[in-house]
Amino acid sequence: MKLASIQYKTQRMAAVAVDGGYIPLKAPNLSELLNDEHWQGLARQTLASGSSEFIAAADATVLNPVPAPNKVICCGLNYSDHILEMGRELPAYPTLFAKFADTLTDPNAEITSENSESVDWEAELAVVVGSTLRDATEDEALAAIAGYTVANDVSMRDWQRRTLQWFQGKAFDATTPLGPYLVTADEIDPVAGVEVICRINGEEVQRGNTRTLVFSAAALLSYISGFTTLRAGDVVLTGTPGGVGMGMTPPRFLQSGDVLSTEIPGIGELSNKFTLRIPADA
Amino acid sequence: MKLASIQYKTQRMAAVAVDGGYIPLKAPNLSELLNDEHWQGLARQTLASGSSEFIAAADATVLNPVPAPNKVICCGLNYSDHILEMGRELPAYPTLFAKFADTLTDPNAEITSENSESVDWEAELAVVVGSTLRDATEDEALAAIAGYTVANDVSMRDWQRRTLQWFQGKAFDATTPLGPYLVTADEIDPVAGVEVICRINGEEVQRGNTRTLVFSAAALLSYISGFTTLRAGDVVLTGTPGGVGMGMTPPRFLQSGDVLSTEIPGIGELSNKFTLRIPADA
Repeated sequence: MKLASIQYKTQRMAAVAVDGGYIPLKAPNLSELLNDEHWQGLARQTLASGSSEFIAAADATVLNPVPAPNKVICCGLNYSDHILEMGRELPAYPTLFAKFADTLTDPNAEITSENSESVDWEAELAVVVGSTLRDATEDEALAAIAGYTVANDVSMRDWQRRTLQWFQGKAFDATTPLGPYLVTADEIDPVAGVEVICRINGEEVQRGNTRTLVFSAAALLSYISGFTTLRAGDVVLTGTPGGVGMGMTPPRFLQSGDVLSTEIPGIGELSNKFTLRIPADA
Repeated sequence: MKLASIQYKTQRMAAVAVDGGYIPLKAPNLSELLNDEHWQGLARQTLASGSSEFIAAADATVLNPVPAPNKVICCGLNYSDHILEMGRELPAYPTLFAKFADTLTDPNAEITSENSESVDWEAELAVVVGSTLRDATEDEALAAIAGYTVANDVSMRDWQRRTLQWFQGKAFDATTPLGPYLVTADEIDPVAGVEVICRINGEEVQRGNTRTLVFSAAALLSYISGFTTLRAGDVVLTGTPGGVGMGMTPPRFLQSGDVLSTEIPGIGELSNKFTLRIPADA
């Protein structure tokens, strides 16, 4: 199934994406839906019942699928090509940092920077947790994955590099687009491999394949669950492949008016216009 | 005022601490209380009314004062003596990382380690946000501080040092005790200076004064609000003074049975027994 959080007129709702539109589910968004342990059965039942309301795609706006995660945890340096591009060695442990629910934004939201002119892109596969995980094995973690979606870990490189800790350059409000769909784990296998693509104004700048991840989605969830509980609706970003602007010579950053596209075939595409709004006296 | 979140019989409630006990407030904890913008007036009114219920201190258990922050942001390297102890230079920008609400625990909770034998202490002044801050000046930030409490940023140094990012060694569930009281901002002035003290089994290992903070509480809140919105109930930890175990020769870590005490005179004291529960085959 392809699930989404959508807006239809003044209402926000979880929905199943079907040909040409959406079948609404009885939850205001996927964060709420996933809190019901029977979410998958409920969604399939709604789909099978045939009697449901149908909302045409043109009448709906897709939103951030999971607007209310308690934890958003990101892995840096997880694609071997990106690791080498950054001049580092292959890691024994995943490099992790946190974002907030506030950091996330909608699949087609405009992204604005008022405090940084060094705004870089990081196309990523995002994992959405489907049930509680604590000290989980990789098999348990794999079984607890609700599904996968697309993210761009847009990074303010100047802030990221002000100190040893990347967090402040990674946690600007409304700068990490997520979506457009949550594809359930039975329909996609990142270990077999999915492509992760980033384009700026149509020009491809990143293309990686998740089969080259040093730490798989299940490995990351298992590792994280060794120190903190993951719950339904939590989000883990799996890292970005080579091709970020900071790795270019000279470094390249987003310019006002650029359209940032992030695509994982089989899941969907984010499209975010970027606007630089640095005050003249900054 | 000294505020607390307490348990009395089977009930949890926000309360004002008074001589010998507590006056209950109409909220299940201070996180909820602070969501009402009139929290301070409501608390003072309850206190002044005189007709309120009284709970003797002996009948109550003090809990983590703010159990549900959306954001817990910590500053590392903020006391000049600790910075020098760690072999670093005085910073131009605060070094920031995140914890979760799950990382916090009660003022007298036992702290257990199952995955690390390198558990270190970091006594800290914690700031609790009282109203929404975005792109705030230091004056605006100062005015938005609800109050101050005590924290110990207990750190798993092995996990902290596995990668460049400290986060994973700082985010173990239920390892950062917070409390026992939230002292409102009108009654304490960390810029003028409060002592921050850490003891292990009664032996003093840390003593710093917040007047030596490189970044004041208000400066930290102002800086953070430049990239993410802070809201009522959010928590900012201001960093730890010199005297952590990792800085000793040889390094010293918590041993099973140790009692970790963290005190800020004028606020109160945390007392946490530490238990190491590493499986034999680990």
